[in-house]
Amino acid sequence: MSQALVLEKTHELTLRDIDLPLTVGPKDVKIQVHTVGVCGSDVHYFQHGGIGPYVVNKPMVLGREASGTVVENGAEVKNLKVGDRVCMEPGIPDLSSRATMQGIYNLDPAVSFWATPPIHGCLTPYVVHPAAFTFRLPDNVSFGEGAIVEPLAIGLQAAKKAAMKPGDVAVVIGAGTIGAMTALAALAGGAARVILADLVPEKLALFADNPAVTTVNVKEQKLADVVQAVTSGWGADVVFEASGGARAFDNIFDLICPGGCVVLVGIPVDKVPFDVVAIQAKEARIESVFRYANIFPRALALISSGKVDVKRFISRKFAFKDGVKAFEEAAKARPTDVKIQIEVAA
Amino acid sequence: MSQALVLEKTHELTLRDIDLPLTVGPKDVKIQVHTVGVCGSDVHYFQHGGIGPYVVNKPMVLGREASGTVVENGAEVKNLKVGDRVCMEPGIPDLSSRATMQGIYNLDPAVSFWATPPIHGCLTPYVVHPAAFTFRLPDNVSFGEGAIVEPLAIGLQAAKKAAMKPGDVAVVIGAGTIGAMTALAALAGGAARVILADLVPEKLALFADNPAVTTVNVKEQKLADVVQAVTSGWGADVVFEASGGARAFDNIFDLICPGGCVVLVGIPVDKVPFDVVAIQAKEARIESVFRYANIFPRALALISSGKVDVKRFISRKFAFKDGVKAFEEAAKARPTDVKIQIEVAA
Amino acid sequence: MSQALVLEKTHELTLRDIDLPLTVGPKDVKIQVHTVGVCGSDVHYFQHGGIGPYVVNKPMVLGREASGTVVENGAEVKNLKVGDRVCMEPGIPDLSSRATMQGIYNLDPAVSFWATPPIHGCLTPYVVHPAAFTFRLPDNVSFGEGAIVEPLAIGLQAAKKAAMKPGDVAVVIGAGTIGAMTALAALAGGAARVILADLVPEKLALFADNPAVTTVNVKEQKLADVVQAVTSGWGADVVFEASGGARAFDNIFDLICPGGCVVLVGIPVDKVPFDVVAIQAKEARIESVFRYANIFPRALALISSGKVDVKRFISRKFAFKDGVKAFEEAAKARPTDVKIQIEVAA
Amino acid sequence: MSQALVLEKTHELTLRDIDLPLTVGPKDVKIQVHTVGVCGSDVHYFQHGGIGPYVVNKPMVLGREASGTVVENGAEVKNLKVGDRVCMEPGIPDLSSRATMQGIYNLDPAVSFWATPPIHGCLTPYVVHPAAFTFRLPDNVSFGEGAIVEPLAIGLQAAKKAAMKPGDVAVVIGAGTIGAMTALAALAGGAARVILADLVPEKLALFADNPAVTTVNVKEQKLADVVQAVTSGWGADVVFEASGGARAFDNIFDLICPGGCVVLVGIPVDKVPFDVVAIQAKEARIESVFRYANIFPRALALISSGKVDVKRFISRKFAFKDGVKAFEEAAKARPTDVKIQIEVAA
Repeated sequence: MSQALVLEKTHELTLRDIDLPLTVGPKDVKIQVHTVGVCGSDVHYFQHGGIGPYVVNKPMVLGREASGTVVENGAEVKNLKVGDRVCMEPGIPDLSSRATMQGIYNLDPAVSFWATPPIHGCLTPYVVHPAAFTFRLPDNVSFGEGAIVEPLAIGLQAAKKAAMKPGDVAVVIGAGTIGAMTALAALAGGAARVILADLVPEKLALFADNPAVTTVNVKEQKLADVVQAVTSGWGADVVFEASGGARAFDNIFDLICPGGCVVLVGIPVDKVPFDVVAIQAKEARIESVFRYANIFPRALALISSGKVDVKRFISRKFAFKDGVKAFEEAAKARPTDVKIQIEVAA
Repeated sequence: MSQALVLEKTHELTLRDIDLPLTVGPKDVKIQVHTVGVCGSDVHYFQHGGIGPYVVNKPMVLGREASGTVVENGAEVKNLKVGDRVCMEPGIPDLSSRATMQGIYNLDPAVSFWATPPIHGCLTPYVVHPAAFTFRLPDNVSFGEGAIVEPLAIGLQAAKKAAMKPGDVAVVIGAGTIGAMTALAALAGGAARVILADLVPEKLALFADNPAVTTVNVKEQKLADVVQAVTSGWGADVVFEASGGARAFDNIFDLICPGGCVVLVGIPVDKVPFDVVAIQAKEARIESVFRYANIFPRALALISSGKVDVKRFISRKFAFKDGVKAFEEAAKARPTDVKIQIEVAA
Repeated sequence: MSQALVLEKTHELTLRDIDLPLTVGPKDVKIQVHTVGVCGSDVHYFQHGGIGPYVVNKPMVLGREASGTVVENGAEVKNLKVGDRVCMEPGIPDLSSRATMQGIYNLDPAVSFWATPPIHGCLTPYVVHPAAFTFRLPDNVSFGEGAIVEPLAIGLQAAKKAAMKPGDVAVVIGAGTIGAMTALAALAGGAARVILADLVPEKLALFADNPAVTTVNVKEQKLADVVQAVTSGWGADVVFEASGGARAFDNIFDLICPGGCVVLVGIPVDKVPFDVVAIQAKEARIESVFRYANIFPRALALISSGKVDVKRFISRKFAFKDGVKAFEEAAKARPTDVKIQIEVAA
Repeated sequence: MSQALVLEKTHELTLRDIDLPLTVGPKDVKIQVHTVGVCGSDVHYFQHGGIGPYVVNKPMVLGREASGTVVENGAEVKNLKVGDRVCMEPGIPDLSSRATMQGIYNLDPAVSFWATPPIHGCLTPYVVHPAAFTFRLPDNVSFGEGAIVEPLAIGLQAAKKAAMKPGDVAVVIGAGTIGAMTALAALAGGAARVILADLVPEKLALFADNPAVTTVNVKEQKLADVVQAVTSGWGADVVFEASGGARAFDNIFDLICPGGCVVLVGIPVDKVPFDVVAIQAKEARIESVFRYANIFPRALALISSGKVDVKRFISRKFAFKDGVKAFEEAAKARPTDVKIQIEVAA
């Protein structure tokens, strides 16, 4: 039996014992979990008991964004050793699927993903995970940074899909966790400048001292006006829609330059009207993001080299015993809480 | 004064004299027009007097899709000589614009385009055109084929934007002129198979003998079912939306494979609801087409080598003196009329 | 014990019994082999006992290019059923390797490949193979065509790497098996025209009736002159070097257009002098090919739709009992023998 | 008559009056030159009287890397106004050429380029230049920085051609001016880390305080060993060869990862032996660079936002009257002189 943070049903989260499989296969590692970030999806399951088709019908351990230490190695594991500090990719595809063999394993319909019903998450002291989806933390990357790699990976997947060119001007709509990570990723991925739009001043304030970021409070300024001014009327090379709000899509194609790109990162609940004529007038490309593939080592390299600084986005940390409180706090969605983490092993 | 097919106002088309500039600049050629295809836009101006923001406020010569013979050369023209049989790209950008210098001259806002108010078209015996946008017809390419290069170029632009890979399965929705040209372009551009959908049997019938085309009458079969069957459930690599009908967009992302592409070729009048979650679930890429750039020489090479056979899509030809009748016929939109052409110089 | 065509050592090939493992794992299929093409590598091992670092130190079954019929299914196999006619990819990577997860499983250093020491090949009546690397033949694709998919896949990999655009002019240097397959792939992949160069008339003759192929006997014509003439001095979009001859590289970058691409398909034994200044003057891109990844289904779709016709390149067939003779004939490298096949099960 | 720094013949440079055309066409601007960097090519003409086919047969003004102030505007110029601080792209293509219309105007054979015989350069108080190739300096970008945009543009062109992905590990071979600019460009363009190799400690020292740069003195360490260590044996995503030295090409393909890229930036005098088998074993892509196209605005955006800091690479400045001395100093190729500039107008 393992202790774990178990979502019994909507709004009912308990720290209790639960039976979790801990058999280490030949290509697996066993990891002592150190830090787990509270993911927006975790909170959504906590508050609503499901996300779209995924419904929590029986108790499920939460947690997706984890770092820890290898404590046992499967017989065939070569890239890791006991004692390695690591972080883990939460989704495991069928390795022999057509999608995986094409390098887009994130799109394998058979993927099993932590804390996505009925798969248990990682808010528990030990997990067993395939070595292929477990990544050694560079010495100068902390457990907290390791546990924020997951949301950063979404931003980096978005920047990769954008196929940015050095010196691009990028717009990021939405400065929540995913928007913030996307802004960091865009800067790391080639943007000369990110124009970051939100309506919450506290979120924008986290980028105030970055000379390569122009923050736009859309309550006070028209985003289109700022984009026109920054780009001398040409338009942005890339727009990352990271808010998921339907209104963000109004005139979104007016923000890009001829031949520009819009990346769909945020997840709007309902269908959104698209102006196809406006898309065509710019001969726009639209890319979209579903989690990430082959990104974790890139995220770690960027954090380790100092190209991406995620520290300020780790807002607060809670002990494992206070895990329920961490979720209650996260559910309040305070503007100053970008990422709340739970230290399972500290 | 030149004779020309002049749209005086909605529904009023006359063959009459009009004053057209015929000065040959140093980089221009003067061309005796031979064949001009009746373009859907021409017909739309004829019937409605405008397309969106483009309104015919004063008499305008129609005609965009032209071939002919060089009769005079500007002093600096080197790539053409008098007597060359040619076809012409109808849009001329500002060569020093930012878009042109990036190779996307079709997106230059300053482009002047035949038969787009207030620019006169080419349904007149002589035109002057920049040599850079005038292309020699290979010996085995007829004037009629030369005059259908323009709509084929749209299809090829779509296939180019799709970044097709050899052996792709492509869906083309809509088998009108643009859909038909897109189907030909997709096959030329790497598709192993095109699944072509329409609800008019006569249009589909033009592809009946092509073993690489699966035609789908959407009144009788569900397109999604055919795609599933042909691709063993994986989905198509590319879907070209070439109908412009809003209903074509329903569930369109269900047709593609993980990581697949949808190309927006058709032009829906109103905004269309897009299912962003469905886009993201496939991590789809969406491309769009606005005319074409750097495509005409490619189209001619494909026709000349026999890779693309456009002949059967030239439905009927009219003499210049019967030009008004040609438009009246075109306006009837008979299912068997894919492309009606007017022989100005025959 | 299985009968098999065993290379005992250089020049010593016998049809005899040998112990081969035939255990069917949960994700494997057992296949009754029908047709096996004689690969250039097979012949090289036969004649020289090794290729570079790969040396035949103990008896090894030859054969890489195979088709057959599924006779037994592993417990977890879903995409195939007993009785399916199939062809097989000869290389099996480690599915959890970094290369595989990136979709470039052909580059996994741990790949095991048929008839590459010490791995046995498929010239034996039954093989066991992972279902993920076994592909159902469409009904209109013969076993012979299925067994030529392997070399065609190399050509298609080359065309894919070239990132061809519809209407490209392509040059293929070398009209041996790989050159011929590359020419077919280039045409299928978007080329308007292939300029195919060799010095053996019989090889070029196989393309004589293809209007999209310009054959060049380099004993009689300068390839560069033909390219200049066909492209009006602009240069070819892509050059596929498929001869492996060092002399083919002389001035090879003069053949391409500004921004053009050279694909290295042939394998020269020694280092080749490259003119970096000439590469830079064209801002050329150079791509290279190592086998193939995710290509077999594409090859089958192209053969089935009629876009690629490989039949004429299957020169002669031998019965399994005459397998040694098949190799002796293949070793003669007759210009009319593009592909010799052995029918193991006929 | 204009004063100018005139190369009379090899080793003979004089500051004297010369007749230069200063007519301002409708799309031109007249610029008062402020700062001109001494380019490696300038020095090469000074010392050797020619570069390959380009020979100085009559007196030629030197200078390619310039910034200044607009003093007069052609009638049709809209993007600039008198008083604007600007920098200029030194190459002017034929705007109606096939290469320009494809967006690769740097490859237009008809390009005229400053200080490339017989075209005069910009080491003179006033130049007339097309507005399309003249770029406004952001307010926080100095004339000195504006004049170093040209070599930075080469680095950025290299990074663009590499199609870098966020988090790449890049190797730059050679830390001279172009190598240094390429290292900055690689970091700006997505590299998590640059491994910079040279044998001159002073050049490497300029990157010593950059945590994202690992410097390698190849006299003391094997570059391959460092790459293996940094990438845990996987190899670098991109290698930029920026030394032009033949020895740099030995085993260069061992440095990249499977599917990796080598960019040819440096210009070796003679042909270089390439190991095609090694290229294929990695399925490497090779890109090459010829100057730049559509890069200057990107370079300025990167400098202005602080993503690229070029200041420390401007080693020394000379007054215009001391221009000959500036060249004599540059010819000494001191390791601490990355870029020497001449202030024409200060």
